[in-house]
This record gives sequence, C-alpha cells and structure tokens, in this order.
Amino acid sequence: MPIGVFDSGVGGLTVMREIMRQLPEENILYLGDTARVPYGTRSPETVVKYSVENTEFLMSRGIKLLVVACNTSSSVSLDILKDKFPVPVIGVVEPGARAAVANTRLKKVAVIGTETTIKSGSYEKAIKALDGSIKVSGVACPLFVPLIEEGWLEGEVVTLTAEKYLEPLKHNGADTLVLGCTHYPMIKGVIERVAKIPLIDSAIETAKEVRRALGAADMLRQDSTDGVKEFFVTDATEKFVRTGERFFGHRIINISKISLP
Amino acid sequence: MPIGVFDSGVGGLTVMREIMRQLPEENILYLGDTARVPYGTRSPETVVKYSVENTEFLMSRGIKLLVVACNTSSSVSLDILKDKFPVPVIGVVEPGARAAVANTRLKKVAVIGTETTIKSGSYEKAIKALDGSIKVSGVACPLFVPLIEEGWLEGEVVTLTAEKYLEPLKHNGADTLVLGCTHYPMIKGVIERVAKIPLIDSAIETAKEVRRALGAADMLRQDSTDGVKEFFVTDATEKFVRTGERFFGHRIINISKISLP
Repeated sequence: MPIGVFDSGVGGLTVMREIMRQLPEENILYLGDTARVPYGTRSPETVVKYSVENTEFLMSRGIKLLVVACNTSSSVSLDILKDKFPVPVIGVVEPGARAAVANTRLKKVAVIGTETTIKSGSYEKAIKALDGSIKVSGVACPLFVPLIEEGWLEGEVVTLTAEKYLEPLKHNGADTLVLGCTHYPMIKGVIERVAKIPLIDSAIETAKEVRRALGAADMLRQDSTDGVKEFFVTDATEKFVRTGERFFGHRIINISKISLP
Repeated sequence: MPIGVFDSGVGGLTVMREIMRQLPEENILYLGDTARVPYGTRSPETVVKYSVENTEFLMSRGIKLLVVACNTSSSVSLDILKDKFPVPVIGVVEPGARAAVANTRLKKVAVIGTETTIKSGSYEKAIKALDGSIKVSGVACPLFVPLIEEGWLEGEVVTLTAEKYLEPLKHNGADTLVLGCTHYPMIKGVIERVAKIPLIDSAIETAKEVRRALGAADMLRQDSTDGVKEFFVTDATEKFVRTGERFFGHRIINISKISLP
C-alpha cells in the first residue's frame, strides 16, 4: 500500500521529494488541492474541512500512512485527522520543532509561515513541549507563497519583501529560523541572506519521521524496485506540472484531476 | 427585491460601492466567496462551477438582477449564467470595454488582469465587437491581488512589481489601460504613475449599466429611503470586514458566513 501525502498545492512536493530520496522504494500518492489553494489565509475551520476531505480521498485509494505536507493544515487539523482516520498521521510541524530545539544555543527560535500557521501558535506549542525554556517568536509572511508560485525566486521584489517581513526578527536575538511553510525552501537563499541565521527545513526531518514510523510498524515496502508515484489535483493539471516540477526536482507524470468533496 | 452581487472576495466591493453611489435606494446582497478566493489563478471550469454555485445561492434569496463583480468570472462564465438563470446578468467586462473604446484615440488599448482573465481574451473580444480596428494587448499581473489583500498599496514592493509587469506595455503605443480586475483600483495611483496613460475603472461603467437595465425593465426601487445592504462570505467574516472596508469605503455590518455548495 502507498504512503498518502497531501498539501494545498505544490509546496508539499518539497516534502515528497525528500521522502523519495530517503525511501525510494515506497509507492506514494500525492494530492494537491489546487482548486482551493492557498490554505494559509483561510480560517482554521475551513482548513480542517478541506483536510478531512483530502484525507477521505486518499483513504478511499488505500494508504498505509498519511503525511500532511502542509504547515497550515498540520497546525490546525492534525489531531482531528489522527482521531478520525485509522492510519498513522505525520505532520510537518513536530519534526521541524524538534530540529529547531536541537539547533538553538541561545534558546530563541523564530518561525515564519502563513497567517493561519503563525496565528495557531503550533510551533510555539510543539517547541515548548520539548523545552519550555525556549522563547519562540513568529512572523506571518503571506506574500511569499504567491511570489514563489509566480516564480519570482530571486531579485529585488522578493528580497525587499523578505527584508520587510524579517525586520522584527533581526533584533530579537533568535539563532534559529524555522521555515514554517513547505513553499519557503524555494527561496531559502534569499531568506538566509536577509535573516543571517541558520534555517530549519522541515522536509528532511519529516521524511526521517516517516521512515521511523513505517519501520516501527513493520510497514516498510520490502522490494528494491523504485516505488510508483501518482499525483492528483483538484484543478487543471498543466499549471501544477509547470510549477510543481521546480519544487519536486523530478518530472511529474501519472497525474489526474479529481473533484472534492 | 434586491440586486445580487458576487465576487471571489473583497474586490467586487469597489463595484458595489459605485452601485450604491448611483442607486442609494436599492437593496443589495453581496456574496464574497472568500473560502475559494482567488479565482484568477484557477482554471475556467473551476471558475464556472463556483460562479454557478454563487448565483444559485443569491437566487435562493430572491434577487431581481445579478452583477458579476469579478473580471475572472465575467470573462469565463457570463454566457453560462445568462443561459441558466432567469434574471438579467451584468458583468464588468463589457462596460469596461465600452469605456476603453470611447477613450482610445490611437486605437490601441492595454488590459491588465488575472491570469485567467487575460488568457480568456474576454476584453479583446468585447472591444473588437465594438470596433474591430482597435488593437488590444493584455498582461497578467498575478501578484497584484495578494499585494492588495496584504495592504501593501504603496511603497517600493508594489511599485517595483508594477514596473516589472507593465514594462511590455510602455513601448507598445497604447493610450488607454483597462484595470481588468476589481482589486486594481486600490493601487490606481501606483499603476498610473508607472503606466503614464489614462486608466479605465469598470466599476463606474458597470453601475451605469445596472441603472440602465433596471430602468429599462421598470425594476428600479420606488422609495427614497436608503436600501438595505446584506453581506455573505464563505469563510471567516472578520478578515473580510477588516480588508473589505478599505475597498468599500463604508462600514460593513449585517454579515453572515454561509457554506457552499
């Protein structure tokens, strides 16, 4: 049975890419809810509704483990998905929080993400659960996702936007910056130059967690051939393929459009 | 019976504002489909589906005329809505096209809008139907909507973004620029300074068309008291009120959240 991965759009492909790198033999189904992207500016209730519908679709295709490859959805719907569905559910917030805790020396962590992720306080909760003495500050950067989707990955506009958003973080003493949105690794270089502190990219940590969970449950695929990858989107496939291949770093084939709910 | 107005979000409030100015006594229902905004980056099929669902909701409340206050939806779904529903349907594309034709001396018109509006070629079709000798060029500006919704209405980022998008229009001899998106009047000043040619704002023309259509059908409200305004959104109301009041220029009260479809 495949691993199921969903995101609001193309961002989760940075997570799928890392899962593929660490577990090339696994079959993976990826669902990008492109008809309803972005999630980051919507209310928690709406994001939960969409996340449940996405999971129902993946469950109907038969999956052995679910990866919520979207920080916004992980922030507000993870507990509900864990309660509601009978498979292991892994989000991107906890693995990123763990890596941040391991990295910070000054016990000050900064997090950037969408409006809904930052408002949810999910990173602060996850980090403080591991080490209550760490200070966490968050900044919402709503323009990063549209800029990245437009392909403006470097140059004046994205640099000025980053400077504007990251200004409050430059003086608060944080020594670790969590990229709390799966789109942001696409502009890692710009963020790093502006923020001047080490970045945490959850994709790598999340993939490790997937491997650990499958190993513990004795569910790793016992076959050395490359797994089959299949993609589903809720809006036109061409745009997803065009933008997505930049995130994924591989060609996207085997893609279908579906309707939700 | 009220006039029904819908848009994907807050943009159509610039149209409603103008209808209110010209026809203060009319009752108006406004629906902002904020759970599924933006429409401009979605496929035509998805935009048609959402537009039909929006109209069904407004029809269920009883309306005498429908205003599609969204350029993307007007561009791809107007004919379908006219066929499907038994009330007069007015979009924002034709009124804007008419004003552009009246304004151009050099017979060269430029249009800016969302990706789906520009790809649809709707303005070109509407302008050429009025005067086949006019040349029309279009440029999609996908970042304007998120910039405006973020409230970055002036300053370096929006100016640089406008310069980047409008660059091709500066050398093609157009003497008239149509704002083919109801959000864009919010950054009129920036666009005007960069483009250096007169702008057409469809809101005023669309409101005139509403008055004409209601007058011709003898459906104008015969009462000198101010009409009742009611708002519906498909996601959280607070954000709509916060952003929307800037577009609307009035307070937004009497608002409810609904679910679609």
